[in-house]
Amino acid sequence: MAELRLKPDLRDRLGEVENPHSQVARFGLDQSLKLDAGVELAPFQIAYQTYGTLNSARSNAVLICHALTGDQHAVNVHPVTGKPGWWETMVGSGKPIDTDRYFVICPNVVGACMGTTGPASINNKIGRPYGLDFPVVTIRDMVRAQAMLLDHLGIDMLFAAAGGSMGAMQVLQWAVTYPERVFAALPIAGATRHSAQNIAFHEVGRQAVMADPEWRGGRYLAEGTNPRRGLAVARMAAHITYLSDAALHRKFGRRFQDRAMPTFSFDADFEVESYLRHQGSSFVERFDANSYLYLTRAMDYFDLAADYDGVLAEAFRGTKTRFCVVSFTSDWLFPTSESRAIVHALNAGSARVSFAEIVTDKGHDAFLLDEPELFAIVRGFLGSAGAARGLTG
Amino acid sequence: MAELRLKPDLRDRLGEVENPHSQVARFGLDQSLKLDAGVELAPFQIAYQTYGTLNSARSNAVLICHALTGDQHAVNVHPVTGKPGWWETMVGSGKPIDTDRYFVICPNVVGACMGTTGPASINNKIGRPYGLDFPVVTIRDMVRAQAMLLDHLGIDMLFAAAGGSMGAMQVLQWAVTYPERVFAALPIAGATRHSAQNIAFHEVGRQAVMADPEWRGGRYLAEGTNPRRGLAVARMAAHITYLSDAALHRKFGRRFQDRAMPTFSFDADFEVESYLRHQGSSFVERFDANSYLYLTRAMDYFDLAADYDGVLAEAFRGTKTRFCVVSFTSDWLFPTSESRAIVHALNAGSARVSFAEIVTDKGHDAFLLDEPELFAIVRGFLGSAGAARGLTG
Repeated sequence: MAELRLKPDLRDRLGEVENPHSQVARFGLDQSLKLDAGVELAPFQIAYQTYGTLNSARSNAVLICHALTGDQHAVNVHPVTGKPGWWETMVGSGKPIDTDRYFVICPNVVGACMGTTGPASINNKIGRPYGLDFPVVTIRDMVRAQAMLLDHLGIDMLFAAAGGSMGAMQVLQWAVTYPERVFAALPIAGATRHSAQNIAFHEVGRQAVMADPEWRGGRYLAEGTNPRRGLAVARMAAHITYLSDAALHRKFGRRFQDRAMPTFSFDADFEVESYLRHQGSSFVERFDANSYLYLTRAMDYFDLAADYDGVLAEAFRGTKTRFCVVSFTSDWLFPTSESRAIVHALNAGSARVSFAEIVTDKGHDAFLLDEPELFAIVRGFLGSAGAARGLTG
Repeated sequence: MAELRLKPDLRDRLGEVENPHSQVARFGLDQSLKLDAGVELAPFQIAYQTYGTLNSARSNAVLICHALTGDQHAVNVHPVTGKPGWWETMVGSGKPIDTDRYFVICPNVVGACMGTTGPASINNKIGRPYGLDFPVVTIRDMVRAQAMLLDHLGIDMLFAAAGGSMGAMQVLQWAVTYPERVFAALPIAGATRHSAQNIAFHEVGRQAVMADPEWRGGRYLAEGTNPRRGLAVARMAAHITYLSDAALHRKFGRRFQDRAMPTFSFDADFEVESYLRHQGSSFVERFDANSYLYLTRAMDYFDLAADYDGVLAEAFRGTKTRFCVVSFTSDWLFPTSESRAIVHALNAGSARVSFAEIVTDKGHDAFLLDEPELFAIVRGFLGSAGAARGLTG
């Protein structure tokens, strides 16, 4: 039914949405996902990758939670871009999250576009993509869906949950919603709520997408258009926030792109312009514009203390989970003060917590980059937590 | 001729461009403006406002240089918006820049859209607006045009040049290009060059404008369209950079707009979203999209040391101008480090310079706001410079 309504090239664009190059857990009408928005999502599916082997005690599972524009392809070649996985530096055989020791699960979040149900998925009721009929989801909804995936996989308790940025939000939500299911939590470059400035940048991105006439009120997939220019602008604006001023200066400064003099035009004279344009145009080849709206919205709504009358410590009270909170000195999107607030709340809740602020000029994206101190901290934290959990090397 | 090609409502939009509510200095074909791009602009005109009275010695003139989206209406009701002038707090009778003492001149910069020649102006050769046929201009071009205005007004030497942000760039360029014509210089929240991050944010804004199909390759005025959505997105992104994270938090936090709960939609749930949308939509009513491209480009190209083999001190060597450099602690667009670099270069050039970093959480826009310490500094600096210049109260 859906096939009849979609133009051929749209089937290609939806390929990973419906039939991803991943394992897929499918939940039927009797297994709905109860959303914070007050509605139930059914049927739905979760696409996920696994790396390593689950031990016989089923006690060595590590959940990797991806960031806004990440996906489940953490440690394998990406099926759309052909590029290495986004966390190859961190996860793998002999890496800090060692797939020789741990069974790593990385699911695509609800609302995304790489195989887990989201706005680009076919709404069976109408036979075409949801578009804006997809319900607004929250970080907690993502975590609830992941818990259903763990049930499906027969895993009662995670050894660890780890992630950066939006991934860190999910890790924190896991520890609050399912404290008995998370032995160790590793939120990197995260926050317990989105700041006004964070919301503002996301709103700019959403307005850029919605301003594109090809967005068509969110119905671009059914109408055979694609708001690629709007989404590229959104990505460009966001990308600046992922880097520090110092990193941009170090990488590009005021160097001209393949020329000695300014052209006195609106060409990409400066290397940083060319770089940003590339970031924008490559992003639209792999990401769904409506998913961008939904996932930014989920981050904006995130406010872990809100359910506890604004007292964050109450969210963590009595938790047995061990935490390792990590921030980066040059991260101005999720600055150290946000991580420090998490640590204070955990201390107030008498939780086990260690905290590391890593000195780097790489900005927010440092969690994705070659950052030896980060690797050493993760390796050490998981090693000692593993010993406490009785995991053998 | 132009009238025939323009639709009626476009004549309204061009009203301030051709026949502004300002004094206008017109320069004919024999008085061309020589541009850094290697071309000459002629004819051209400069729209300007004056406040106060020029003394008989013609020695009390203060040039006010406006910022990117400012204009000549510093201390009077704006003819388009009906709002007060943008520097009413700083300039006026009894104000720090006291119009009872000084003759204040505020010109609209070349490339802008409030009466000085820019891309929305009619290109007499073709009888319709320049659009992208307007040559790319630089900060130095703006200053050269202002010098021609001073010649026109019979003013050899400015008592002072003052401005914030792009205005500070002009002030610095004045002191370098015409050191003998500037007795005192007051660059506020400025820099001697645009950083990679600055360029990146401007490029996002330009791409947002150019991504709007109504931009029409810059020919929207002739074609009766208006890239308002693209320009609004550009303004929204830029506006975030004008405020500090702390100021956004203080003003908006995570407060909802006229509601108690999230709507689980893409409405402007948060006050900060509503505020940003308003900033975007009100801006497009008064500003020309192509002017936005040209003026951001001028700022990107600005690099005062480039003509001196990168040695900033050489730009100021031997200057007799007195400087007062001001920055704001929470300004992350033009951070204090940029102002400090100016001060170091001036010291290395043995110039007279004082420097003030003002503690405020208001961010870059602090130069436009009620900032008592700034007022006191400006008043004191101009007072002592005035005494040295022989100006009497």
